[in-house]
Amino acid sequence: MAMYKAPLRDMQFVLNEVFEAEKVWSSMPATEGIDLDTVNAILEGGAKIAENELFPINLSGDAEGVKFEDGKVTTPTGFKEAWNTLAEGGWLGLGGNPEYDGMGMPKMLTVLFEEMLYAANAGFTLYPSLNTGATILLDAHASDEIKQQFLPPLYAGQWIGTMCLTETQAGTDLGLISTKAEPKDDGTYTITGSKLWITGGDHDLAENIIHLVLAKLPDAPAGSRGISLFLVPKFKVNADNSLGEFNNVNVGSIEHKMGIKGSATCVLNFDGAEGIMIGEANRGLMAMFTMMNYERLSIGIQGLGLGEVAYQSAMDFSKERLQSRAPNKEDRHTDKAADPILVHPDVRRMALNVRAFNEASRAFASYVGMQLDLSKFHEDETIRKHGDNMMALMTPIAKAFITDRGFDATVEAQQIYGGNGYCTEWGAEQYVRDARIAQIYEGTNGIQALDLMGRKVFSNRGEFVNVFTQEVREFLASCADQPNMQEWISKLETELKRLESLTASVIAAAEKNPAEIGAASVDYLNLFGLVTYGYMWARMVSVAQRKVETDTSGFYSAKIKVGNHFLKRILPRTLALEQQVLAGADVLMDLEEEAFYVN
Amino acid sequence: MAMYKAPLRDMQFVLNEVFEAEKVWSSMPATEGIDLDTVNAILEGGAKIAENELFPINLSGDAEGVKFEDGKVTTPTGFKEAWNTLAEGGWLGLGGNPEYDGMGMPKMLTVLFEEMLYAANAGFTLYPSLNTGATILLDAHASDEIKQQFLPPLYAGQWIGTMCLTETQAGTDLGLISTKAEPKDDGTYTITGSKLWITGGDHDLAENIIHLVLAKLPDAPAGSRGISLFLVPKFKVNADNSLGEFNNVNVGSIEHKMGIKGSATCVLNFDGAEGIMIGEANRGLMAMFTMMNYERLSIGIQGLGLGEVAYQSAMDFSKERLQSRAPNKEDRHTDKAADPILVHPDVRRMALNVRAFNEASRAFASYVGMQLDLSKFHEDETIRKHGDNMMALMTPIAKAFITDRGFDATVEAQQIYGGNGYCTEWGAEQYVRDARIAQIYEGTNGIQALDLMGRKVFSNRGEFVNVFTQEVREFLASCADQPNMQEWISKLETELKRLESLTASVIAAAEKNPAEIGAASVDYLNLFGLVTYGYMWARMVSVAQRKVETDTSGFYSAKIKVGNHFLKRILPRTLALEQQVLAGADVLMDLEEEAFYVN
Repeated sequence: MAMYKAPLRDMQFVLNEVFEAEKVWSSMPATEGIDLDTVNAILEGGAKIAENELFPINLSGDAEGVKFEDGKVTTPTGFKEAWNTLAEGGWLGLGGNPEYDGMGMPKMLTVLFEEMLYAANAGFTLYPSLNTGATILLDAHASDEIKQQFLPPLYAGQWIGTMCLTETQAGTDLGLISTKAEPKDDGTYTITGSKLWITGGDHDLAENIIHLVLAKLPDAPAGSRGISLFLVPKFKVNADNSLGEFNNVNVGSIEHKMGIKGSATCVLNFDGAEGIMIGEANRGLMAMFTMMNYERLSIGIQGLGLGEVAYQSAMDFSKERLQSRAPNKEDRHTDKAADPILVHPDVRRMALNVRAFNEASRAFASYVGMQLDLSKFHEDETIRKHGDNMMALMTPIAKAFITDRGFDATVEAQQIYGGNGYCTEWGAEQYVRDARIAQIYEGTNGIQALDLMGRKVFSNRGEFVNVFTQEVREFLASCADQPNMQEWISKLETELKRLESLTASVIAAAEKNPAEIGAASVDYLNLFGLVTYGYMWARMVSVAQRKVETDTSGFYSAKIKVGNHFLKRILPRTLALEQQVLAGADVLMDLEEEAFYVN
Repeated sequence: MAMYKAPLRDMQFVLNEVFEAEKVWSSMPATEGIDLDTVNAILEGGAKIAENELFPINLSGDAEGVKFEDGKVTTPTGFKEAWNTLAEGGWLGLGGNPEYDGMGMPKMLTVLFEEMLYAANAGFTLYPSLNTGATILLDAHASDEIKQQFLPPLYAGQWIGTMCLTETQAGTDLGLISTKAEPKDDGTYTITGSKLWITGGDHDLAENIIHLVLAKLPDAPAGSRGISLFLVPKFKVNADNSLGEFNNVNVGSIEHKMGIKGSATCVLNFDGAEGIMIGEANRGLMAMFTMMNYERLSIGIQGLGLGEVAYQSAMDFSKERLQSRAPNKEDRHTDKAADPILVHPDVRRMALNVRAFNEASRAFASYVGMQLDLSKFHEDETIRKHGDNMMALMTPIAKAFITDRGFDATVEAQQIYGGNGYCTEWGAEQYVRDARIAQIYEGTNGIQALDLMGRKVFSNRGEFVNVFTQEVREFLASCADQPNMQEWISKLETELKRLESLTASVIAAAEKNPAEIGAASVDYLNLFGLVTYGYMWARMVSVAQRKVETDTSGFYSAKIKVGNHFLKRILPRTLALEQQVLAGADVLMDLEEEAFYVN
């Protein structure tokens, strides 16, 4: 059946052995007090909640779904209790600002906590994820007064945050929004308009919901330069934080979706609701990007979590499933009617694909978290700047590549079950449905690729790419003394050159024709993702090679073998992607628009 | 919204222009009378049923699903009426044997009819698909008496056939079945056992259900050499074809599935039911392969149909969806608030991927149908033999490659919608769920790949591969006079050499280690599929190039451009697949079985 055990050993490996988190943390005043005991306690505590509270209500939450009756939204059985557990344990402020009662834990740790929650129950985890994003936005852009008033109850789970961007006519293109904010004499604003696809737009988990809403002032410039940001609570908040009257935020309907059925996705009508402006007028989209960038990494981790639970569940199934005989006689279990299906090379291929991506995604999420921590907390400006650049470069890859590979992982894991994987009771098909949305929301993966290719590569003429390749080359140089790393070093060097040359080609082409950016973007992102995962695997294998001789657990030996699968059977995908990018824009633009449509 | 119009122009192109069906048919006595008027009437009649009867009950059929109450199964609203339409129009015997009231239409035509049904309503179409498979099996293996009695009512849709193979412990590995058949004095058999995942195992569409059941005689040899085949009606049948008593075939339950929710998937308990043996004792699996091979092609077409309806629906959405601006100013619709999303290169990339696969799959399905017709009806033994070999080689590719690319197509089409694609009302997410099963049932796509690599390539040391590459080279030679085909000729020659050299590598490796077959199989099948689709595209483009100059419809010009997308942005995937195959089995087999499991 479905199973989930938090992969604590692998998490500790990533944190302590691959990235030497203690060293990183001790170099920054904001994190210098964090020791391994604290970290382990956090990971173990998170694992308990994920395994014992969230996972048992995952399948039932999908079957039951969210209900919308008499204008009110109810979450599935057990969700409220699970929320309370998180709230009471202080988990909702895990990465929060200590000045306002947050726990101040670094991102490279909290990504691992998030992975456990998503793995155990993706539909549920969107509520805390949006809440965290809202607190990050407020912490970065709100006045101290607002932070004093709103952050502590949000960290405590007494209230919960949302993100209100999309409208019917404005999804990717937020410049088209029409929600209006009219200034009132008391300094607040009257918000009127309708928002679509609001995750956690209404529900019964917390006593108040704090909406962060994009809207336009009466005199706003057209397009995305005329968007402001407002805090709009469901119930107005008095000075002592007691709740006042209902603020005219009405639920129009909830969406019926392919998956994440425990997550309430609402149409919200702001019928003259009172809002407080956050940050500067007409600069709302920039402020919202603080939240979006957090959510993009968080949604990447949704892909990883679902890939991980899909792997574990499929392996649990495989252990008991006996079908056919191993190709080689010496591998056959002749005492049984047939062999466990993992004797078959193709079943192993699927399992290794899933695992090779999951383990690289875990390292990558923590790596991106580390860059965020460095960019935020480090005292050395050069290091802060490096972290900032890497964050900017890696965020679209983290969102798109982890979720694309996460979706593939759930599909490939489902395939291992044969027909059982298609039947609801095993859980495998729910992971596929739940993973699918992660490729779509928070900016589709196509939009992530455009962000990477346009803003993060083309607009700085490959400067960030060079920062990345230099970092990888420094790492490869540090492995020069490891005989077992020579194949990794030479293959990754080939991939770095491929990435650099392709980057130069696209930049040159796009200088002549802007359509080359969008034409190259998705294949380029996938190639970049593979090279990045190659780097993650090289770092993991390098550590494992140094320790495998004296290890009896099998952990390092497995790490090396899974890494070898990545190197030999996954990394070659760059060969195809390179040619696809080089094919250029004309191939795509030649066909007349009318010829796409069916009349 | 969701839309479906049968692609009649493209179907006629494939049939009449690419494969010159009339020439093929006129060469064989069984088909020589079929003219284009008949063919067009059949395609147009099929289109009407698909568009007007089946498509309108697709979304509702998914929402409503199949019901199981008081031991009886009820199909969704409208399914019974749609079945009656097919039955009354004679459509259920379209490809059936004319000696028993079938219409005798060739397979290269009926595949197109099947595509329309699957596109319009995949959940529904499994009922006629299984029925057709059952009639093909009976026509090939039953006695004349049985055929006289059972084929006419099955062709008429008065009765309906099923296929009962799987048991809880026996899916891929049918040698493990335990259903028993005990001979009775009257020559019939008593069937006892439980069968799983029986599509259309019970329902309300027809007055009787004719189950074709695999079971073991008391003295049967162990494993797959001891399986016999039995015809087991739901209600016993009297000599005059009136229905007798209930035959103790009980529905245990129905499955709750990810998709194809209008299709009843049943656990069937044969509680001492009376069965008639079909074919010889212990040779049942071979007879069942006649049905399975049909179903494998049919399920391939399920992938194509869903890819096609996904494309059409996504394009219908795209026409109306305005977001952001085209990268080049001259492409902008400045009279609108934003541009239709097809101005964006990446949206075009997705649409062209979907379309390039759909159009190649359509040609390929018809091509495989043609091989089947030639192998069955042609008087020249050499041609029959060629058809037979190509059928054997291409059936696993048709099942696996069309369904894998069909699933990809539904996912990529869903992506074009952004968030709307995840919401049930648009239909896009249903196509994904409905397409997913096609990769799993009728032998998982991994099993298809093993069949290709093991039985169709390794066991004859690449003989069938050579038959294929020779046919492609003959075609390429026939295009030598076409200046616009030179790039196709040279790129396909490269791919043929790659395929041949890879085939030789795998055969050599597998002679030393049988695990190499399974290790190579899926990547090899995908590479073979791409080369085959390259061949299909070259045939289509060659025709289009000869006609494009004098054409004002835009059809041939679009064909050439979509083909160019395939050549430049899809075919290069072979580069990666080749390396993945060459990586070999050790990479997969190195990790100890225990190390896969999570403890």
